[in-house]
Amino acid sequence: MTKIISVNAGSSSLKFKLFEMPTEDVLISGIAERIGLADGIFKIEINGEKKVINIPIPNHKVAVELLMKSLIENNIIKKFDEIEGVGHRVVQGGSHFDKTAVVTPEVEEIVESLCNLAPLHNPANLLCYREFKNVLPTALHTFVFDTAFHQTIEPETYLYPVPYEWYSEHKVRKYGAHGTSHQFVSKRVAEILNKPLEDVNTITCHLGNGASISAIKGGKSINTSMGFTPLGGVMMGTRCGDLDPSVVFYMQQKLGLTPQETDFILNKKSGMLGISGFSSDARDIQDKVDENDERAILTQKIYVNRAINIIGGYFVQLGRLDNIVFTAGIGENDATIRELILKSLEEALGLEIDYELNSKIRGKEIKISKDNSKVAVYIIPTNEELVIAYDTYSLLKK
Amino acid sequence: MTKIISVNAGSSSLKFKLFEMPTEDVLISGIAERIGLADGIFKIEINGEKKVINIPIPNHKVAVELLMKSLIENNIIKKFDEIEGVGHRVVQGGSHFDKTAVVTPEVEEIVESLCNLAPLHNPANLLCYREFKNVLPTALHTFVFDTAFHQTIEPETYLYPVPYEWYSEHKVRKYGAHGTSHQFVSKRVAEILNKPLEDVNTITCHLGNGASISAIKGGKSINTSMGFTPLGGVMMGTRCGDLDPSVVFYMQQKLGLTPQETDFILNKKSGMLGISGFSSDARDIQDKVDENDERAILTQKIYVNRAINIIGGYFVQLGRLDNIVFTAGIGENDATIRELILKSLEEALGLEIDYELNSKIRGKEIKISKDNSKVAVYIIPTNEELVIAYDTYSLLKK
Repeated sequence: MTKIISVNAGSSSLKFKLFEMPTEDVLISGIAERIGLADGIFKIEINGEKKVINIPIPNHKVAVELLMKSLIENNIIKKFDEIEGVGHRVVQGGSHFDKTAVVTPEVEEIVESLCNLAPLHNPANLLCYREFKNVLPTALHTFVFDTAFHQTIEPETYLYPVPYEWYSEHKVRKYGAHGTSHQFVSKRVAEILNKPLEDVNTITCHLGNGASISAIKGGKSINTSMGFTPLGGVMMGTRCGDLDPSVVFYMQQKLGLTPQETDFILNKKSGMLGISGFSSDARDIQDKVDENDERAILTQKIYVNRAINIIGGYFVQLGRLDNIVFTAGIGENDATIRELILKSLEEALGLEIDYELNSKIRGKEIKISKDNSKVAVYIIPTNEELVIAYDTYSLLKK
Repeated sequence: MTKIISVNAGSSSLKFKLFEMPTEDVLISGIAERIGLADGIFKIEINGEKKVINIPIPNHKVAVELLMKSLIENNIIKKFDEIEGVGHRVVQGGSHFDKTAVVTPEVEEIVESLCNLAPLHNPANLLCYREFKNVLPTALHTFVFDTAFHQTIEPETYLYPVPYEWYSEHKVRKYGAHGTSHQFVSKRVAEILNKPLEDVNTITCHLGNGASISAIKGGKSINTSMGFTPLGGVMMGTRCGDLDPSVVFYMQQKLGLTPQETDFILNKKSGMLGISGFSSDARDIQDKVDENDERAILTQKIYVNRAINIIGGYFVQLGRLDNIVFTAGIGENDATIRELILKSLEEALGLEIDYELNSKIRGKEIKISKDNSKVAVYIIPTNEELVIAYDTYSLLKK
């Protein structure tokens, strides 16, 4: 048995899950939150039992130390070197990585060079890797890229119709995100169907606070809604998705906004929060919809409208569509959003949905379409940490 | 018989067509070009005979005078007041006009107030109206809005997921364009089918140097690809269409661009010109494709990719799709672009196309799908001037 830890670092957080592989048993999971602030929080869960520790976590080094200490204290391991692999989620791998990579000085350097494409994420990913490498020098460290799965997308889909030099000199193109999630659920649906992955075409809807939709043809991503950064594509909790860019210029001039300020508004004050005016959380929106709040109803309608327009485009690009899969926070748990999306797709795609069943499902793997539906519709809980652990385990066994 | 003149004014041009209504006979058509420059050009066409006059046209006043003089000189009219109606194309009617309006001081004021939403177009439209009003004070003048036909679009489709105040306070929303063209060809296809307009669902592809695609449900526009300004939507000759807005911020910071400069690049240096690097003209791109030029091939592929993604979205939004119509410069004349788009839609939409027939058609009304095609596909030459004349004629007869 091999102990592998999956790590997902943000600028002020560190999420982790320790797996026993290949059995996939989760020995411990947790998160260090509010790193850098005075009132840090360290949460762990072992066998369903949760602990919360309030403790200052001045930096990622301390977060890693807390994590390692908790493994010993809770008898998960006796010595650090029992951890044989660490898989680090990295947000931006650019055009360099089409699969998970063992970290070498060269790989580290490339990820460093991509920091300007993901200034909030890649630096935190690197920082955290270095702290883990210090305490676990003998373990195999891997970088699992959010973008890698989308490297199969063709140039005509990933290029924007802007001056070509913006791509050739400045690397501006669609990179996508949530790659491990789209990969996981599209593989899983083929397993459920007991069909070769090559024969299955699926549209995967990863709808969380961040959200992206992908077209997966025979196991390969051929399009995805997130773009150059996670701002593009569908409407999200606080992000706008794709826009007529003249909106940006007009408002920059109207309000005298810098690029950074406009970026902040479109990343943090738009999406569901921008339209509703009160929350970025789909659950809050639903509560207000139940009270017949006009702006909340409008928020859901815009969300659905933008999602179905992307799905329709991907349907055409795939040519033949076998499955639609919902995953992530909203996709797994928000029966209303799923219902609104599916009702809007129904006529064009020939869907037959068991809405009664759909209304009861939260976070469970299940088929919600009827057998006579032209396209099967599934809810499949995502498991990005498991993909990270598996990729690391496979490289370790090579 | 009633003489109606259709006018389409740009900042440095004035296009016109004089109709005898209701017979739709064109008595004279023409264009004044390079207004404001030393080397103006005035072109007219009467009964297929063309004349070109090189003459300085310092301003729109002179252009209107030249036009009126040519009507007398060519024995089209004996006195100015024989012209009973003048229909002026106006680019931006905001949320104020859902149909053609007789110009009143109030209407003029509203169009004036919308100049900041269409700074290149509305001022020219107003200027030109005032010059015509001077020489034709007794004629009925109408404003025919490019945006009016799209006023049936629902809020969930026309609102962007940005802060709601950008709409409520700054009027930022999708307005669309080419309304008269989308209206004309979608009505025409119902006539061809001999069906009530209410029973016909059509996707209209107005593909010219500027381009927009619309979803028309029972005669009403329910979505259109052009957005807040004509920069949004599909890829065009020099315009990018919709983007992940982070591309804008990133390049503004990389190159130190102002909003105006970025706007200029995305409006004038992007689209087919941006990707190909050599031309914004689909015919030039095709010539290079024939020589196997990689960037030209890529340009066509991106163009097609972005168009089919929009069409797929509209297919879903319509629920049932009866027809696809191609119109405008590229739509009517570029058989290759039509073929590439239709081949990409074929499998998903169940199209059966007579590609042999398609390859021969330029600027002619014809059905290019086979009878067993699930969706009928037509080429229908657009006639925006005729719509303008008809609307004006109808208001005159009221």
